[in-house]
Amino acid sequence: MTKINILKEAEKIKKSFNPFQLVDVDNFHVFLGLFDGDYRKHRHPYDEFFYVISGLVELVMDRETIALKPGEAFLVPKNTWHKSAAQKKALVMLFEKQGLQSEFA
Amino acid sequence: MTKINILKEAEKIKKSFNPFQLVDVDNFHVFLGLFDGDYRKHRHPYDEFFYVISGLVELVMDRETIALKPGEAFLVPKNTWHKSAAQKKALVMLFEKQGLQSEFA
Repeated sequence: MTKINILKEAEKIKKSFNPFQLVDVDNFHVFLGLFDGDYRKHRHPYDEFFYVISGLVELVMDRETIALKPGEAFLVPKNTWHKSAAQKKALVMLFEKQGLQSEFA
Repeated sequence: MTKINILKEAEKIKKSFNPFQLVDVDNFHVFLGLFDGDYRKHRHPYDEFFYVISGLVELVMDRETIALKPGEAFLVPKNTWHKSAAQKKALVMLFEKQGLQSEFA
């Protein structure tokens, strides 16, 4: 194992809303995500943890919208329809179970 | 769910090396850890992911020592003897599987 420098890894990301895998933790993935604009509404049968490293992120769910700034985190519970949005580029660390598929609205 | 502000949560931590649970992500915990001084050498049969938010952290393993600064992360693989050390207070986000026990050296 070598250590992971989050900002250096982020430089490798060319495409927004395309999870960039940092490492596996048992049967979980740690991803970096570059959020830019609006992602499609979706849900999945597992929890998803978002931690904002830079930029401003909105998590839009049916009953509420959560606005996150750097240093803030949110858990989208399993089976919850959600979409992510960022007016400008934002960098997010994501933690979720491996191998499961999203259902798009 | 409400959003989690990491630094505000950190203010609630009174004791170092005593994982403070932020949220569960399926069968994983997200913890905050206040590292201050040296923790005991231990291992556990599951991976542990460390992400340093503030301060400087050393992860001392039998074959190598990894020094981490804010924005850096490291995975200690399962069954690897390790101890954590921080010369001054450091704040760390930790991801690991729920319910498993550490074995101390």
